Amino acid sequence: MSQLNWWKSPAPSISQTCLKQAQQRQDQLTKPPGSLGRLESIATQLAAIQHRDTPGVDKVFIAIFAGDHGITEEGISAFPQLVTVEMQRNFVNGGAAISVLARQLNAELEIINTGTHADPDELNGVTHLPIAKQTQNFKDQPAMDTNQWRQAMGVGKKIVEQAQQKQIELFIGGEMGIGNTASASAVLSALCDIPVENITGPGTGLNASGVNHKVAILQQALEHHRPNLTNPMEIARRLGGFEIVALAGAYLAAAQNAMSVLVDGFICSAAAAIAMKLNPSIEPYLFFSHCSAEPGHKLVMSSLGVSPLVDLNLRLGEASGAAVVVPLLRSACALHNEMATFAQAEVSNKS
Amino acid sequence: MSQLNWWKSPAPSISQTCLKQAQQRQDQLTKPPGSLGRLESIATQLAAIQHRDTPGVDKVFIAIFAGDHGITEEGISAFPQLVTVEMQRNFVNGGAAISVLARQLNAELEIINTGTHADPDELNGVTHLPIAKQTQNFKDQPAMDTNQWRQAMGVGKKIVEQAQQKQIELFIGGEMGIGNTASASAVLSALCDIPVENITGPGTGLNASGVNHKVAILQQALEHHRPNLTNPMEIARRLGGFEIVALAGAYLAAAQNAMSVLVDGFICSAAAAIAMKLNPSIEPYLFFSHCSAEPGHKLVMSSLGVSPLVDLNLRLGEASGAAVVVPLLRSACALHNEMATFAQAEVSNKS
Repeated sequence: MSQLNWWKSPAPSISQTCLKQAQQRQDQLTKPPGSLGRLESIATQLAAIQHRDTPGVDKVFIAIFAGDHGITEEGISAFPQLVTVEMQRNFVNGGAAISVLARQLNAELEIINTGTHADPDELNGVTHLPIAKQTQNFKDQPAMDTNQWRQAMGVGKKIVEQAQQKQIELFIGGEMGIGNTASASAVLSALCDIPVENITGPGTGLNASGVNHKVAILQQALEHHRPNLTNPMEIARRLGGFEIVALAGAYLAAAQNAMSVLVDGFICSAAAAIAMKLNPSIEPYLFFSHCSAEPGHKLVMSSLGVSPLVDLNLRLGEASGAAVVVPLLRSACALHNEMATFAQAEVSNKS
Repeated sequence: MSQLNWWKSPAPSISQTCLKQAQQRQDQLTKPPGSLGRLESIATQLAAIQHRDTPGVDKVFIAIFAGDHGITEEGISAFPQLVTVEMQRNFVNGGAAISVLARQLNAELEIINTGTHADPDELNGVTHLPIAKQTQNFKDQPAMDTNQWRQAMGVGKKIVEQAQQKQIELFIGGEMGIGNTASASAVLSALCDIPVENITGPGTGLNASGVNHKVAILQQALEHHRPNLTNPMEIARRLGGFEIVALAGAYLAAAQNAMSVLVDGFICSAAAAIAMKLNPSIEPYLFFSHCSAEPGHKLVMSSLGVSPLVDLNLRLGEASGAAVVVPLLRSACALHNEMATFAQAEVSNKS
């Protein structure tokens, strides 16, 4: 596979041997078989991904990709575009939700500017890999050109390969970009063949008439691009954002490097959907953390055939939903690794 | 209120002032208002319970009440009764699920024998407060007499009052008792007026014919006791278990002492239902952690008007579901206490 189409290289197979051994171990632990529900399948899947008897997700890396969106000039967000830049500063200064959660998890947090109105000088601590100041307004033109798409994919790959050097056990991607629920709704409508009005919601907090306006703009955009929305790359390039495409690149590169991935909410699911459609071999590496309050998310999860772990009515983005789910994965691993077997504990098994 | 009916004393009011202040703070934090969903209401409710600006659940106390059940002689469990004793040893020795999770949470774990076939000498590390070797078979006689009911309630109260001395911020109760899903199903059927066949499930792992047999036994038991199932105390005394009644006592005493409580799964919900029906003033102190795989649990949660935080298909008991949810509460508190406000971070608010 050429470097040009790096994202098509298959992810390595997960270990069926480790999977079976882990499942056998689960059935010997001092509990009714299956009684730890999804915590059992998390642990066995991680064992298969990591080719280990004792899976673990202690070393967590969180990358937040920020990008600005030309579509914001259509008035489709409740917050001003300036917030994309301001929040990057907040991430770095430790005051944002993900800053708090990363500290709590003892996770490494990196903020990547994939293309925003930020002045690099005012954002110390942010990794600057900007593609442009913002995407084009995709209402009537492609959000990015082919080179920009490739560059955005490469940003995600680069960040993951740097994380890989640090023996990361779990990769989490997040996003910040005023306007990006609009972009995600358009991408997912086209990728999953769902009417855009069914997966468009209030984002950061539009009222009902704001949502109606957003739907109208997205319908117009999809109408315009429809003849060209023939493959995942074109869908992502025409309707996506730099941060969304970078996330797709990151998920692909993570799976290709055999890293487990925890997907955040609605916008990250758009990136995951792009990645899965480009290269279905990555699917075993992806865990979906939560079902967002953004109303289309349930439909998307169902269309992708995946089940998020929790539903806490979250709709913040910036990887916050994935971060709050990490302790569930850690509990799943601890239970798998540390519980006694029936034989060890001399406990009677099922009659 | 006399000591005789201690459980009827109202729980103290939660602070409406702290609740409002916490809600106001949530709306100033750098996120769209409401976007942290249930994590926001957890934090504000804890602030109101704890009368604090900065709620916290770092200090967690987990009490597992073990009890044996006379009804097991009807063959209503997939595991032999011996396991109730064997698992107490496993808890203490650190090999059980709750042992692993308590270590992970840095929580204190106490195992209380409320009445099992245990020989105290062989169970070092267990707190022995036994009421009898087991309850009576409630198929055709009350599970316990009035003195035993009062004694079991007192065991829960005593354990909570000891925990109270240690400035505990969150009380978690758990249970171990072969046969106790049968008892919980009978109690909940009577308390919530749900046909017992709708809330009877496989417990530790009965097959379909085993479940049918369990339903038949429970229908017979409810038929026998029906004329006397006129109040929560009689329902719990006739159909409950020592560990279930001790849990109800613990929940009541915890709320009366202004402690927040995290309720585990199906059997703990039976105890919580007894407690709430005996004394509805305790309700603001109770958080329901998870929806169990035991099929009746959804119906019961809905009947009680409460929403569990997660649904992970767990059905182990021993407080394991509550324990895996503790990090969500801790995340909710950290976000509330540590995030920057819009003003502090100089981030623009909603347009």
